[in-house]
Parts: sequence; structure tokens; C-alpha cells
Amino acid sequence: MAGRETLEELVRLQGERVRGLKQQKASTEQIEEEVAKLLKLKAQLGPDEGKHKFVLKTPKGTRDYSPRQMAVREKVFDVIIGCFKRHGAEVIDTPVFELKETLTGKYGEDSKLIYDLKDQGGELLSLRYDLTVPFARYLAMNKLTNIKRYHIAKVYRRDNPAMTRGRYREFYQCDFDIAGQFDPMIPDAECLKIMCEILSSLQIGDFLVKVNDRRILDGLFAICGVPDTKFRTICSSVDKLDKMSWEEVKNEMVGEKGLAPEVADRIGDYVQQHGGVSLVEQLLQDPKLSQNKQALEGLGDLKLLFEYLTLFGVADKISFDLSLARGLDYYTGVIYEAVLLQPPAQAGEEPLGVGSVAAGGRYDGLVGMFDPKGRKVPCVGLSIGVERIFSIVEQRLEAELLYKKNPKLLNQLQYCEEAGIPLVAIIGEQELKDGVVKLRSVTSREEVDVRREDLVEEIKRRTSQPSCTC
Amino acid sequence: MAGRETLEELVRLQGERVRGLKQQKASTEQIEEEVAKLLKLKAQLGPDEGKHKFVLKTPKGTRDYSPRQMAVREKVFDVIIGCFKRHGAEVIDTPVFELKETLTGKYGEDSKLIYDLKDQGGELLSLRYDLTVPFARYLAMNKLTNIKRYHIAKVYRRDNPAMTRGRYREFYQCDFDIAGQFDPMIPDAECLKIMCEILSSLQIGDFLVKVNDRRILDGLFAICGVPDTKFRTICSSVDKLDKMSWEEVKNEMVGEKGLAPEVADRIGDYVQQHGGVSLVEQLLQDPKLSQNKQALEGLGDLKLLFEYLTLFGVADKISFDLSLARGLDYYTGVIYEAVLLQPPAQAGEEPLGVGSVAAGGRYDGLVGMFDPKGRKVPCVGLSIGVERIFSIVEQRLEAELLYKKNPKLLNQLQYCEEAGIPLVAIIGEQELKDGVVKLRSVTSREEVDVRREDLVEEIKRRTSQPSCTC
Repeated sequence: MAGRETLEELVRLQGERVRGLKQQKASTEQIEEEVAKLLKLKAQLGPDEGKHKFVLKTPKGTRDYSPRQMAVREKVFDVIIGCFKRHGAEVIDTPVFELKETLTGKYGEDSKLIYDLKDQGGELLSLRYDLTVPFARYLAMNKLTNIKRYHIAKVYRRDNPAMTRGRYREFYQCDFDIAGQFDPMIPDAECLKIMCEILSSLQIGDFLVKVNDRRILDGLFAICGVPDTKFRTICSSVDKLDKMSWEEVKNEMVGEKGLAPEVADRIGDYVQQHGGVSLVEQLLQDPKLSQNKQALEGLGDLKLLFEYLTLFGVADKISFDLSLARGLDYYTGVIYEAVLLQPPAQAGEEPLGVGSVAAGGRYDGLVGMFDPKGRKVPCVGLSIGVERIFSIVEQRLEAELLYKKNPKLLNQLQYCEEAGIPLVAIIGEQELKDGVVKLRSVTSREEVDVRREDLVEEIKRRTSQPSCTC
Repeated sequence: MAGRETLEELVRLQGERVRGLKQQKASTEQIEEEVAKLLKLKAQLGPDEGKHKFVLKTPKGTRDYSPRQMAVREKVFDVIIGCFKRHGAEVIDTPVFELKETLTGKYGEDSKLIYDLKDQGGELLSLRYDLTVPFARYLAMNKLTNIKRYHIAKVYRRDNPAMTRGRYREFYQCDFDIAGQFDPMIPDAECLKIMCEILSSLQIGDFLVKVNDRRILDGLFAICGVPDTKFRTICSSVDKLDKMSWEEVKNEMVGEKGLAPEVADRIGDYVQQHGGVSLVEQLLQDPKLSQNKQALEGLGDLKLLFEYLTLFGVADKISFDLSLARGLDYYTGVIYEAVLLQPPAQAGEEPLGVGSVAAGGRYDGLVGMFDPKGRKVPCVGLSIGVERIFSIVEQRLEAELLYKKNPKLLNQLQYCEEAGIPLVAIIGEQELKDGVVKLRSVTSREEVDVRREDLVEEIKRRTSQPSCTC
């Protein structure tokens, strides 16, 4: 503020100087020169923040939920909560903010996206970035070593929002986690089973769950010759393979992160592979990788995991993908991420893009970071990213909101009446044969046949009329 | 930090000086003097922030919800949402933070309690302080002039928490509001009816709803001789009459706020009155008050309100109380606040204190503050403060969690076994007659009779044993 005040004072003085010159009948050139100085100073001041117009909006990256959107949200949550409860989870809740230090050192490079609260005296606070770290804090605080819980709440990330694709700065996570010491891979398999159950129930299109293990990645980096200190940053590069080509990722590894090209090439040979349990078995025979203790443990566990997944009837949805790395620091074992295969974009709608709708993994060290004596509580969990799912369901809003196995025309017309939808396009067998669409005004109940090619124009014409009841 | 570094450097140099003196075999006095300087410098440095202990806790004034507490929360919400829906409300949701300027100028003296987010670049944001202002922003943004909605969400206030009495910095509000132009007092009466329905259903003890009108208060201040500029601050003083005596409030008005003593006395004559519709009629005959246009409007509306409340069968729960003022700036007409009459504190429990559990009022100007053209949308609403209710229900946890019309002993014992409660005190007819309590160990199922006066000691003794299974 001091800087601004000094500048303001300078502008004022300069202005007085110009007025003085005018009174002295100075040359136009002189005056112009002084005015130029004045404008330059004013530009340095920037826009006057005190006088900007009031903006009627929600903060960037956030949105309101209308009653209709809330109906979608409730429907999606019902499916998810029903599944979590069937699998025996209890529910907890935690505050929207945590002590800043609770979040410190848990998210690696993503920490810069954490929202901090202003220091208004008292404790330093941050908005929660996920539900996993608060869960670990909850376990340590209550000395719990054994719980199956779910938690559905909003989390906050100062990311670049892409709201049409369901990416927000305030968004829901639906988390299910199992804490406790159990026989290997049984809780991990249950998490993957739950993911598949929920994504199937939601009927948002075909999906695939990529699976990998942090120990396999670490072992792989070791045998390829990556220095220990670069494991995490090279892991971040690998994670970009779903959006970038191998050539681009390699350039980042070599150019930005200083890896030797031959080391990058060795990594590339591995991380471009994906497949089923047969790939696990193949790598177990890999002369180099099988010599690495960590990689061997990871591969052994993945083999066991696939056995359980076959028993659970979901193995066909799972792909062992060596390029899956996951951003967060706290994972220690199996990691997974579900992606939609065929985004259900329809004509005239913005494509939703293939993207992650659920993810998770094993984090055996996180609770120990909070326990005063460092006691570890093994944990594995999953998180459903419902905003993308809301977007998909909202784009197909009407059909979804009817929730009918056999939607009758009369019900649909009644729904339009209640919801204030002015026009209905009806296509039956006769209309198909004639190449027309029956356009019905909901309020007047008048119907006219419109040729397919004229439909868009006709709808535009009718809806653009003032106080259109069509 | 520069200051700190300079001090640290000084401490280091001073330390070297002391070591130098020792090598030179300087006098004890000299050394002591130098050490004193050193300690003084070190004290200036303050505690080393880098080395403070990690604290495992939730932020001040917040709490986690355990699965058992979530069960209470769900039960309470079910009652409230059921009532809101019966009265035809739709549900919406808004972001947890708003643009800072959205909240500016809406809360009067309470604005200092708003949580701001740190300026990390981009928009300046604050956590929502209530659900009313976001609702008004939502109406203006979507150009809605007519809606009945409910909204259940957490709000944030940097207040002094009193958590045992259900006062938190993060707490739920359950809001129901009616926006739109309707015949006088019908929506207002529905809000009061809803409040009474919910508080009766929750079975948390007897309650009373105080009612007043901001126009009556303003009229009253005017005829008593309060200067216009002091209306709001004197209103704040009046609002304290539920916690302070009239003498104390008068002292504040005269001593702190500079009101003439005779003006304060005139106010006192009015605001110490409360009663039913007969008091409304009496004041309508008051020679001074009935001359004031605002007061007359308020009193006329209250009379009409009582007619509707009688029709709705809740008039016996309502008290016209001239001392009710409400803190928030945005109220323009009828205001109300529900208080519990007999806090259900039980032996050995901290008393909950009589307190407000629901409140609300009419705010006809708030939406207009957001509309670019200042268009007004009349609104009236209510807010249920559920944290107090959670506290009450949690203190009676077991009975509540069984949810049984006829709780059988066997069921209760089973519940204790499942919930890990170690001891049960059983009082039947025989025990009452004998003046004893049967103390049962849940795990061993052994029962002993303990004299009433020895019960507390016996329970303390048993529960203090290491790894007590009693």
C-alpha cells in the first residue's frame, strides 16, 4: 500500500506541474511531454480497486446447485452410499479446514494448490485438499487401528477449473477406506470391487480400471538407473502418459529433469506396456526386474490381487498399466484409477473427454506420520469423483430425471409441463418413415409436423419470441 | 524474517564474544554480564517456531463426527428435511465460500467474525457466515422472484466457541425461506408453524418462540428520542436483555453509547414487556406509539400474524417480546427466536443452558442489494441451529440410539456389548425399594448390588483399572 500511496502522490504532484505550466503559457510540446509522464505514472498505478463494479457471481471454479441439479446429486449419492453400506462401512465427517501443518508434506508438488485461510490471529488453517489426510489424522487422534468408513464431502483445490468437463475448485469426493492389518490384497480387492459395482450401477458408459503398484515403479526406476532422489519427479512425468506421447514425456525427463537418454529409453520400454495377469507373470520372469526386491513384492501382490478380482467377477474390467503413477506422495503399494472409455457426448453437446472418475490406492505410512510414536496403521481406499458423473448425468437430464424403466409419452409430457419445458420433439415410427419430427407446444398442446432439416430453425424461431409459450 | 535473522546473528556473535572472554580468562563478572546480554537477546528471539511440537487436533471450535454422532445427525436431519419437504420446499446448495464483497455490509457489527481466505492471487474470498446472504445472491443471480427452498450446510464464524453447549466455529444451519410477493403475514406464519412442528417432533423439551418486529423497535426508538444514527447500536444493546439485567443494559446505553438517561428509561418501560396478542392490542392503543407510522404497521402485522398462528394451532407457543432485537442488519420486519425452556440437563452432566435453537425473520431488502437494478424480492425465513440439538440428543445418546418405543433390557444389554460400554446400572422396582443399584459387568455378566451412595466411587474404581473390562 505504501508503494501505491507514493505513486498517487507523484501523480498528484505531476498534475500540479502540468497546471503550473499551462498558467505559464508553456509550449504545447512541453505540456504534452508532462502529460505523457502523468499518464505513464497513472498506468503504473493500475486500475483503482476501490471503484470496480460489483460482480454477481460465485467464486471461480465453483457453482450453485439448483433444485434440479440437487436431484441428480441425490440420485448419484444414493447409489454410492448404498454400495458403501452394503460393504459394511460406517460414516464419519471432519471439519472443512484443518490445521495447516496437518496438510504439510502430504501432497508433494500439488501442495501449491492448497487453499490457506487468512491469518486473522489464532491457528493457521487450510481447506482440506482431500478426505484421505483428514481420515489419517482422525485415526491417529482417536487411536483407531481398525475401521471401515466412508466420507462424502467437498474438497478444495486451487486448480485451473474446466467446469464443462466437471472439473471444479470445490468438488465432492466420495471416499471409502479400510484401515487395519489384514491378509494381503483382500481389502485392496474389495476396494476395486466397490469401484466396479458403483460405476456399473451409475450407467454412465463403459469403463476400465488401470492398476499398478508404487513398489513396481520404484523397482523399475532403480533397475533402469534413475537416481534415488529423482524417483518422485520421474514418477510425475510417467503419470502424464495418459495425456502426452512417450516422446514428449521422454523430452521432459531428459530436458527438464536431467535424466540420461538411455535411462529414459529403458523406462520407456517398461511403462508403455499394459495387459492382464499375463503381463504380471511375464514381468515376474523379467531377469532384471525380478532381481529387485520391491518390484518382486509388488508383482507378487498384483498376481494375488488378480486372483481375488477373478473370484469377485471383475477381472475383465481391470488393466495392469505400468504408466499409471498417481500424483499424491502418500501411496505405498497398489494404486488404481478408473477411466470412462466412451464418453457419452451427444450431438451439439460439448464432448466430456475421457477422464478419471475414480481412483485410490494403498497408503500404509500416512497414519504413522500423525501418531506421536509413529505407529503405522495400514490403509487402502478409493475415491469417487462425482462431479464428472454429475456432468454426464446432467447432460442427459430429462431421461435421468424420469427414472422410469418404461418411460411413457404421457409421463414425459407431464414432466415437461411441471418443469416448464416449452417444446417437445416427438419421433415415432410414422415420423421416422415420413422424415419429419412432430413438434408439440407443451402449453397449447398443439402439434405440427416439421421436416427434420427445418427443425433447428423452427425451434430457434419459437424460443426467441418474447415471453414464448410456443 | 529479516528481523529474526539479524537477531540470530547477534546471538551468535555475542556467544563468540563470551567464548573469547573465557579463553582470555576474563573475570566471572565480565562473563556473567556477557551471558546476561546473550540471554536477553535470546529472549527477544522468542520461541523457535521451526521446532514446536506437532499438535494432533482439529482446529479450535470444530469437531469430527464419529459414526455414532453421524447417526444422531442423520436422525435430526431426517425430521427437519421431512418437515421442510412437507411444506413444499425445494433444496439448493451453494459454495462454502463467496466473493468477499458478497458478504460485505450485510452483518453489521458481526462482520468481524467472518473467516477470510488468504490472498493467493485471484479473487478475494470469505467463508459463508450464514445461508441467507448466499440465498439472496442466488436469487438475484438467477433472477428468481418466487421460490420456497431449504438449504442445509455448514457456516463459519470466528466466535468464542462454547462447545459443551453446542456452540462451534463450524456449525450446521438448516434454513427454510420463502421468496416472493404474497398476502401479508401468510409466509411469516408458515415459518413459525414450521419452527414449532420441528421443535415438537425432535422432543428436546418445552420451548417458546419470541416474536417482535424491527418496525416496532424503530418506531419505539423514535418516540423515545433515540437519534436516528443510534438505532442500530441501541438495538444491539436491547438484544442483550436475555443475558443481562435491565440495569446493566441501561448502563451500556448511557455510559458506552451516550444516550440520555431519561431516553433509556423510556425505552426500558417498553422493552421489558412481553405477552400475547393482548399486548399487541394494548400497544395499538398507546397514545405515542400508535402515532408512529412504522410502529403502527408492525403492530398491525403482528395482530394479523397472531390470527394465522391461532388458526395453525401454535399461538400458545408464541410470545410477543419487545426485548427481542436480533443481531443481523438485514431484517426489515417480523423477527423471531425459539428458546428451550427446560434444558434437559441430568445429574452429573454439564447444564446446557437455556438458549436459542432456531431463529429468523423477514428481510425484504437483501435481494435488492444484489440486483443490478435494485429490484426487491420480499423474503422471510427461518434457521434451525442443530448443534445445540445434537448436543442434547448426544447427551441422552443411548436412549436415542436405540430408537425403540419399548426398550427391553436384553436389547439394551446387547447394545452395550456391541458398543463396548463396560458397565450397566440397572434400577428396577426391587432396587428402588432397597436403595441400591444393580451394577452389571457387560463382558463377565456378573451383577452386584451397590448402595446408591457408593455407586460413583465403585464405577470410578472399576473404570480406572488398567485395561478394564470391569
